[in-house]
Amino acid sequence: MIKVTLPDGSIRESKKGSTPMDVAKSISEGFARNVISAKYNDTVIEVSTPLLEDGSLVLYTWNDKEGKKAFWHSSSHVVAQALEELYPGAKLTIGPAIDNGFYYDVDFGDRSISEKDFQEIEKKALEIARGKHDYKMRAVTKAEALNKYKAQGNEYKVELIENLEDGTITFCDHDTFTDLCRGGHIPNTGIIKAIKILSVAGAYWRGNENNKQLTRVYGISFPKQKELTEYLELLEQAKQRDHRKLGKELELFTFSAKVGQGLPLWLPKGAALRERLENFLKKAQKKAGYEMVVTPHIGQKELYVTSGHYAKYGEDSFQPIRTPKMDEEFLLKPMNCPHHCEIFNFKPHSYKDLPKRFAEFGTVYRYEQSGELHGLTRVRGFTQDDAHIFCTPDQLAEEFKNVIDLTLYVLGSLGFGNFTAQVSVRDLNTPEKYIGSVENWEKAENAIINAATEKGLDFVVESGEAAFYGPKLDFMVKDALGRQWQLGTIQVDYNLPERFDLTYKGSDNELHRPVMIHRAPFGSMERFIALLLEHTGGNFPLWLIPEQAIVLPISEKHEKYAQKVLNSLENHEIRALVDKRSETVGKKIREAEMNKIPFMLIVGDNEEQENTISVRRHGGDDLGSISLTDFANLVTNEINSTLKSF
Amino acid sequence: MIKVTLPDGSIRESKKGSTPMDVAKSISEGFARNVISAKYNDTVIEVSTPLLEDGSLVLYTWNDKEGKKAFWHSSSHVVAQALEELYPGAKLTIGPAIDNGFYYDVDFGDRSISEKDFQEIEKKALEIARGKHDYKMRAVTKAEALNKYKAQGNEYKVELIENLEDGTITFCDHDTFTDLCRGGHIPNTGIIKAIKILSVAGAYWRGNENNKQLTRVYGISFPKQKELTEYLELLEQAKQRDHRKLGKELELFTFSAKVGQGLPLWLPKGAALRERLENFLKKAQKKAGYEMVVTPHIGQKELYVTSGHYAKYGEDSFQPIRTPKMDEEFLLKPMNCPHHCEIFNFKPHSYKDLPKRFAEFGTVYRYEQSGELHGLTRVRGFTQDDAHIFCTPDQLAEEFKNVIDLTLYVLGSLGFGNFTAQVSVRDLNTPEKYIGSVENWEKAENAIINAATEKGLDFVVESGEAAFYGPKLDFMVKDALGRQWQLGTIQVDYNLPERFDLTYKGSDNELHRPVMIHRAPFGSMERFIALLLEHTGGNFPLWLIPEQAIVLPISEKHEKYAQKVLNSLENHEIRALVDKRSETVGKKIREAEMNKIPFMLIVGDNEEQENTISVRRHGGDDLGSISLTDFANLVTNEINSTLKSF
Repeated sequence: MIKVTLPDGSIRESKKGSTPMDVAKSISEGFARNVISAKYNDTVIEVSTPLLEDGSLVLYTWNDKEGKKAFWHSSSHVVAQALEELYPGAKLTIGPAIDNGFYYDVDFGDRSISEKDFQEIEKKALEIARGKHDYKMRAVTKAEALNKYKAQGNEYKVELIENLEDGTITFCDHDTFTDLCRGGHIPNTGIIKAIKILSVAGAYWRGNENNKQLTRVYGISFPKQKELTEYLELLEQAKQRDHRKLGKELELFTFSAKVGQGLPLWLPKGAALRERLENFLKKAQKKAGYEMVVTPHIGQKELYVTSGHYAKYGEDSFQPIRTPKMDEEFLLKPMNCPHHCEIFNFKPHSYKDLPKRFAEFGTVYRYEQSGELHGLTRVRGFTQDDAHIFCTPDQLAEEFKNVIDLTLYVLGSLGFGNFTAQVSVRDLNTPEKYIGSVENWEKAENAIINAATEKGLDFVVESGEAAFYGPKLDFMVKDALGRQWQLGTIQVDYNLPERFDLTYKGSDNELHRPVMIHRAPFGSMERFIALLLEHTGGNFPLWLIPEQAIVLPISEKHEKYAQKVLNSLENHEIRALVDKRSETVGKKIREAEMNKIPFMLIVGDNEEQENTISVRRHGGDDLGSISLTDFANLVTNEINSTLKSF
Repeated sequence: MIKVTLPDGSIRESKKGSTPMDVAKSISEGFARNVISAKYNDTVIEVSTPLLEDGSLVLYTWNDKEGKKAFWHSSSHVVAQALEELYPGAKLTIGPAIDNGFYYDVDFGDRSISEKDFQEIEKKALEIARGKHDYKMRAVTKAEALNKYKAQGNEYKVELIENLEDGTITFCDHDTFTDLCRGGHIPNTGIIKAIKILSVAGAYWRGNENNKQLTRVYGISFPKQKELTEYLELLEQAKQRDHRKLGKELELFTFSAKVGQGLPLWLPKGAALRERLENFLKKAQKKAGYEMVVTPHIGQKELYVTSGHYAKYGEDSFQPIRTPKMDEEFLLKPMNCPHHCEIFNFKPHSYKDLPKRFAEFGTVYRYEQSGELHGLTRVRGFTQDDAHIFCTPDQLAEEFKNVIDLTLYVLGSLGFGNFTAQVSVRDLNTPEKYIGSVENWEKAENAIINAATEKGLDFVVESGEAAFYGPKLDFMVKDALGRQWQLGTIQVDYNLPERFDLTYKGSDNELHRPVMIHRAPFGSMERFIALLLEHTGGNFPLWLIPEQAIVLPISEKHEKYAQKVLNSLENHEIRALVDKRSETVGKKIREAEMNKIPFMLIVGDNEEQENTISVRRHGGDDLGSISLTDFANLVTNEINSTLKSF
């Protein structure tokens, strides 16, 4: 008998050699039907793998991340088999699960495959899946493994195997198909009920551009057809909400090949929207006792040597900027913190001055490979809504809570209710990895956990995930399509105060080190606006949206009244414009809808006579004929309902 | 007889060989007494130089820039003589007039001179001046010239002479002293009534750091002792108003050796002041139809190759930023215009969309040698209040007038009434130097001159001073000490629209080139704030100053009431703070005075009982006991009297 510990801490005595599925069944037959994968003593295994020693068992269903991973990894075997059968001679390389689905990198030789082939591949793969073939792991010797792939002429698998140690090599068989594989499959192919090939792309063997370019076949699969249908709908919605598409249509930002990739140019509407977001945060920050500072976008290399950034990131970053005489070296600023430390160092501080809270909408530059760039979410230059709080260790708990309050206020005002948090703490087993006193770490970790608890955050604590210089809290939000986005961080730092020799005079008249908190509720303006675009599909909160209303005169003779309406709206500080083109009102409405303008104000004879406007909401609601004052109140009330003051 | 044309166009027949002084006397004996230098046919000459051919004569007095130049250049001969006599063996090199005074670079051998030697030098120089020695120019052969200095062992003068052509070499004699000199002196040393040695500094021979370091002796001289006294007072005032000193005292900005020289860090009070200035301009710009944009601080090298900046400035600038793979090159943005051109190019334009006015507080980086850096006036990174207007050639005149209106409004609101302007136009003799059609140049030059005239500017037109790509108008302001500062520019540009292939569709349905206007009313935030500091001595206009009022409780028991006053001030949007330190009110007042806080609000028993404040103005005026509402009105009225809306 062996002892199997379950995640709830309960221990089951099982026969040596019993499988995870046996354990699952001993819990409940119903539950066991959904179990598709397992982890034993931190190793992913099949549900059919015999358990031979005491250990901790986790059982996964489709609803677990690890369950999906096994499902998709197993699906990639099925697709690989389909490709081998459809394209004889195609050389398989690797095929892992990814966040949404899986891929397989294949050398198709002279052939190429494209969208028109997808259906056939899907059909073939589904046919295989329906065979309900079990996945069976099998140990092989290195020689056997090499023989198989040498016989096939598959130099990729041969290369992979050559790098493995004899005795550790396994194959996975199902149906007539065999693949080199470490394991982690679902019980059988029959569970896979829906398969979709999503796209193909070029990918270098082992990610090295000196190697041959392979074809990466992306796919996804589900245990129910309905789930695939829903996923594809979500994908279509996501495409419609793609911030790159909306940013262009709404004229918020653009990129220029001449200026350079990953360097957004903010167009007037986007720049104004950014400014409204900034002003919103500035106002809250002012109330929370922050002071704005302004620092340059470059700093001497020496500054980043002091901060430690150069040693850590220097080689993979934008390279140093030299001067004509080559006697000085500067770096594009990758972070604002070193500059803010130098501002703190401007004059001596007493404990009575603390906390100091320096905030800056600081634009930083970080090198990303061109292939990694993506709209506003992965750029080379971005503006952080950055701030650094310098406080005494005793003030840390209170400051941390204040930052959580501010972050919750900010996210709430922008329509995000659905977020989770992760608290990253030390690994207590490796104290040598962290700087700062144990006492301070304890204080900081407790402060963060207590603050998160007190503020009612839905959070997990991850041991070993802290940076070497301090623990942190990360916010994740779910957007309207249920996708998770990593947002701002609150980070405690003992390192920079040390490196920049920051001090304050305590009540004991001695010099002490302050603690630093880094924080950015939005994360960056670029990423946050991308998220807002995808979350709202461009239907920004009323207080934020570029144009709140558009006046649509029915014909040319109503233009004068339309202008009068516009002036009145401006006096009410409502952002509006007039569509004076000689188009039908129908067409004007359709375009205003496309431009996501919340209110269409139609003015014709009746409205002019009665000094009113006919109000149509974006989406179609007809609010009828109302006075301008009533409309202004409606706008104000709607804004006040989302935008509370901090 | 020769014909001598005077600046007013009048022609005087004079005997050949008569001197400028003869001509001056023929105008008026009184005037002649003040004439100290002259220019004949664009060559600076002595007033005693015989006129041998027809020509144009300009006569200079001390009040002319050229007159001062001759005066100071002549004074440098006197100081050189004094140095030679006091420090036998000292080798003289060059000694020109500069904007305020003159210098002489001397190799003192092993000796060094310092402030304690100044009085002796001044005494000796004044003694020489009082001898009323005439300055007499004398032509010498190259051989004679070389002999003189070789005999002295003066390798510097020998080097200078070796680079001159025989037949063009002249000496100037006065008293026992002779110097190699091109001419341009006052009649005699007796006119120099006051001489002051200001400072000494190191200077490399010929400005090349591989050469020997010489001692640069700075001096100034005047025709009246009183003028020297006044100048020294002004110098002392300027020292007190030095923006570097005030910026530190008022905690507006700082520099950090680690961040790098010439890269200001804006402290909270300075950043807030900057933001107020920016918001002020933004508001006016919004009314004037500008749209804000945001662009990155770097651009691909290619962008600046397109704009032409790279060819022109590349080598003397911050060097390109390379990527880890060395496959891309970026430059720190020296100007915002190329980025704004790319924004214009974001989509096609019709003549109906124009003008487009893109504004950005754009931070740019330009390399300056470390020796050239000076506080905020000469920096390596600065923020321009930049905008680019893209318009049709027909709209240029109107747009130019609008920009002048905006600039006048901005300068006026900040207390500058005293400014002049310069219009820089083509040199009609060298049409090949300019790009763009003659028609457009005429249109643009006329537009600028008409606009400047119509707006009542005090301006001069300088032919040949236009850039190759268009004419411009520069604003110069005089500060409280009468010093001239170059401020913003309005610049017409035909070049960039060409280089970036900017077009709009005209009413004729054809594509046309827009004209571009570059403009920046402040010039840069850094330079303008430096100017404002020196102009106001830190006593900024009330709407702009960091703290408008400070509440001074007489003792600890009044702190609660002081806090109540502060809250009430904040409700009135008056920026204030409380001085809670346990110091005497006298001391608190003295420090508030030093910190340039406009209003000191003293609160004690009486004030608390009567719910008032005792108001003392910066500088000492006692406004007595008034209610908070009255005080708020007083502040509002004062602000409204300087800060009109645009």
